[in-house]
Amino acid sequence: MTIYEEALTAHRNWRGKIEVMSKINVLSKEDLSLAYTPGVAEPCRKIAENNELAYDYTWKGNSVAVVTDGTAVLGLGDIGPAAALPVMEGKALLFKEFAGIDAVPICLDTTDPQEIIQIVKALAPTFGGINLEDISAPRCVEIERALIEALDIPVFHDDQHGTAVVVTAALINALKLVKKIPQNLKVVVSGTGAAGSAIIKMLIDLGVKKIIAFNKEGALHQTMENATFVEKEILEVITPKDFTGTMAEAFVGADVFIGVSAPNLVTKEMVATMNEGSIVFPMANPEPEITYHEALAGGAAVVGTGRSDYPNQINNVLAFPGLFRGAFAAEAKKITPGMQLACAHAIADTIPYSELNSGYVIPSAFDENVVDLITLKVAEAARKDGVTR
Amino acid sequence: MTIYEEALTAHRNWRGKIEVMSKINVLSKEDLSLAYTPGVAEPCRKIAENNELAYDYTWKGNSVAVVTDGTAVLGLGDIGPAAALPVMEGKALLFKEFAGIDAVPICLDTTDPQEIIQIVKALAPTFGGINLEDISAPRCVEIERALIEALDIPVFHDDQHGTAVVVTAALINALKLVKKIPQNLKVVVSGTGAAGSAIIKMLIDLGVKKIIAFNKEGALHQTMENATFVEKEILEVITPKDFTGTMAEAFVGADVFIGVSAPNLVTKEMVATMNEGSIVFPMANPEPEITYHEALAGGAAVVGTGRSDYPNQINNVLAFPGLFRGAFAAEAKKITPGMQLACAHAIADTIPYSELNSGYVIPSAFDENVVDLITLKVAEAARKDGVTR
Repeated sequence: MTIYEEALTAHRNWRGKIEVMSKINVLSKEDLSLAYTPGVAEPCRKIAENNELAYDYTWKGNSVAVVTDGTAVLGLGDIGPAAALPVMEGKALLFKEFAGIDAVPICLDTTDPQEIIQIVKALAPTFGGINLEDISAPRCVEIERALIEALDIPVFHDDQHGTAVVVTAALINALKLVKKIPQNLKVVVSGTGAAGSAIIKMLIDLGVKKIIAFNKEGALHQTMENATFVEKEILEVITPKDFTGTMAEAFVGADVFIGVSAPNLVTKEMVATMNEGSIVFPMANPEPEITYHEALAGGAAVVGTGRSDYPNQINNVLAFPGLFRGAFAAEAKKITPGMQLACAHAIADTIPYSELNSGYVIPSAFDENVVDLITLKVAEAARKDGVTR
Repeated sequence: MTIYEEALTAHRNWRGKIEVMSKINVLSKEDLSLAYTPGVAEPCRKIAENNELAYDYTWKGNSVAVVTDGTAVLGLGDIGPAAALPVMEGKALLFKEFAGIDAVPICLDTTDPQEIIQIVKALAPTFGGINLEDISAPRCVEIERALIEALDIPVFHDDQHGTAVVVTAALINALKLVKKIPQNLKVVVSGTGAAGSAIIKMLIDLGVKKIIAFNKEGALHQTMENATFVEKEILEVITPKDFTGTMAEAFVGADVFIGVSAPNLVTKEMVATMNEGSIVFPMANPEPEITYHEALAGGAAVVGTGRSDYPNQINNVLAFPGLFRGAFAAEAKKITPGMQLACAHAIADTIPYSELNSGYVIPSAFDENVVDLITLKVAEAARKDGVTR
């Protein structure tokens, strides 16, 4: 049986990977009058006087809505909200398993950004955080920004920032191995959608100065036409702004390649032209920009992919549970770039320097220390950034 | 400590009465690849081809959204969506405890009926049913009708039909005791909002011919002004249509009084003018139209209220869990009047005739047979009404 056949059978048996459980027993009239009427009227009255008390008397402080419109699900694309539900259930499952957070899938039957913004705003009283998921670019950027602006609870688009956090964590550790610092790197990024744009911004927060970014058409540059608003923003922050060569040309003398684009765009010959101690993270999934083994054959010092069947899996599961756990612990109203960078450092720091090696720059999602360390560091960053309630 | 103080402390300790649990363990890469990527792609693909398969591969067939806008919460009125959350969590808790259904509170930060309709339509791919709750009348009627029309999953406004089902169940059993049939009754109903209008329609489905209905101003009649659209609909189905007397005058020779209105509208002297074997269900909560003891003192043969501290508590908890359980069991697309009447009969039939008495016409919500019998009868009615998928 293939993994797909096996997963299909398993999903049919599960009929839902999550369930809503009551935390208390209701076995008598007395139980009912405490948890429901008439007793429940009292927390209602208190919250009506001060909405902040919802954090004291309800699940709000520990709940997340996992919201999608089904337009960019895994590598499957625009498959619609009903078909996105198994992924959102999976995400909710991971929130609970890795961070004890109560997450609810919300698959919306609309693809209009303004309507999605309006609906999520209307849903906000029920939840303590919003995890946007699998919404296509550049709409996802517009939606996330409007919601961060409008709401006083954490709003986080995992496909953008979750990926950025984990690839940054891997980069931080890889740089320790090759003994380079961010300020001196030349980085090539393939992909300027949701993940690519967030990665580039985070690289700059990390201190990287020189980045060349590619979309399907070629390198982003100042005189290009048809740039999306996200690409225009990338162009504002990267240097050089005038590179118009091929990706092969960009590879010459580069230190890092990060791919969040499409299969087979990179050859081992291109990797061979990079600087010594090159770091190659081809993360297109399931088929990367260059295979793990080809990248090594090209001379890469550290290789990481999105796949679980090779070393250094760059997996979002490492970031979002702890990031929300930390935000909740600090009662943060937002997830700031500072909190995201703290999360990347926490993930990287989970591996002691003595254990780092080219096949182990990123911890396993099942390393129990990861969420605890992220929680601590993210909460600390939230307080430092002054975004706690 | 009062029940209110006790409930407040309990809610602070619980910080949420429900939680989202994973139904499966994720302890290894293999678990992750089955429940999440890459395996999850396969059920996604299948559902994308045929959305109905969401019932096979996700929680859809067993999940309910408990939706409110917080405009008519308990007796507290328009307290807003944040303050409504403890009640919606309580409702979700009861769905699980009594019927094993996964229910999610959804408290919406909008009171515009069209916007609520649009949002619930957009949420529908995620859930197998919609339970509307504590939305003020007559808006709730408009919202429920539009959603029943638009969606192919059960939509049910509990404040309307849940109350109607349970009071009808109590009436069915009370009538056995006083040896009367619906066709010969004269019924006085006080309250023409959400619950009152649904009760009147269900009484007519039960076979009642003579109903006089009162709002705050007096009896509904053909030449009245300022009737709401719900009241106009009531006037179309009730007889007599020309009664303009007082409630005291309506009580003379009446067999049944049903109150879903306000405290202290009825006296024991009024009850004394009813026919022999009178049935009095004053359900205003927490203070009824007439107290249990006053109604008995007036000569009522059977008295039921909404309160748990007197016999015959007419409690919605008896209906909604089994009603949704039955609808889900039959894979029903709607909850029809026939299914609701079947639910009322099932509740009534839970008590064997030999055990019926004036203080026991309605079973306890903790009677384990109730949900099972409702499930069976409601599913049967769904098949009979041809609304299964």
